[in-house]
Amino acid sequence: MKRLFLTACAIALGLSIFSTNDNAYAQDPAVENAIKYRQSVMKAVGGNMGAMVGIMKGAGDKANLATHAGAMADLAKIAPTLFPAGSDFGETTALPVIWEKPDDFSAAIKKFQDAADNLATVAQSGDMAEFGKAFGGLGESCKNCHENFREKKER
Amino acid sequence: MKRLFLTACAIALGLSIFSTNDNAYAQDPAVENAIKYRQSVMKAVGGNMGAMVGIMKGAGDKANLATHAGAMADLAKIAPTLFPAGSDFGETTALPVIWEKPDDFSAAIKKFQDAADNLATVAQSGDMAEFGKAFGGLGESCKNCHENFREKKER
Repeated sequence: MKRLFLTACAIALGLSIFSTNDNAYAQDPAVENAIKYRQSVMKAVGGNMGAMVGIMKGAGDKANLATHAGAMADLAKIAPTLFPAGSDFGETTALPVIWEKPDDFSAAIKKFQDAADNLATVAQSGDMAEFGKAFGGLGESCKNCHENFREKKER
Repeated sequence: MKRLFLTACAIALGLSIFSTNDNAYAQDPAVENAIKYRQSVMKAVGGNMGAMVGIMKGAGDKANLATHAGAMADLAKIAPTLFPAGSDFGETTALPVIWEKPDDFSAAIKKFQDAADNLATVAQSGDMAEFGKAFGGLGESCKNCHENFREKKER
């Protein structure tokens, strides 16, 4: 009976430790804020990408492509700082492989940065054919990260 | 009987004209694209605002506040081009008052631009107290537009 009690206590303690840890990570304000910050930067990335698609389809002023492309290059420079250790818990679709294979992830981020820098340079020329090609390259670098380092979206 | 038939035809024709017009606006690819472009730029605005909140709460690198503030100033410059005539139909929460009172709307956009320019300037100094004040001013200019020129969100 005593043994059963001790076992029950051990299990309860174990569960409690696990659950405390989960909560600690999920509710740590610093971790939550790091994840929200990452998602905000990604929202800006998505907004600028969408804006460039809109301009290429005829909306707004073509001269603003350079603004959005420059913003992408700036945001790509921030990208490596968006995944601090510990920010793989909570409300995130970032996959553990980001932290498990940091070299692979860094290489993917580098591709993103190079493609964004290239787009920002090409945007200055105003050559729409070249811009289209460079935009395609940037899109590939997005896809590369999203396919390999982000949870698949169900919807 | 003939009169009834003619009346029915007139009603049918009338409905058909209304429905054609509605569809023409809602499905005009140029209008839809203008609205999507606007929403993408606003998404970038929201992303940069959220990112600055994240940094002020301790995420990322404070030096990047200048990047986000500069992006806001750039996006604010684009803002006046985001509401072309006719883009008040379809999937948008932009209110008709934007086009009915263009001077009022222009003044609101100008507030946004001035506040964003001020934030971009202050961000260069690195003074966090001043940055907080300027950020508050920018937030006020967002609220001013969203309260007066955007449909209230139900959720």
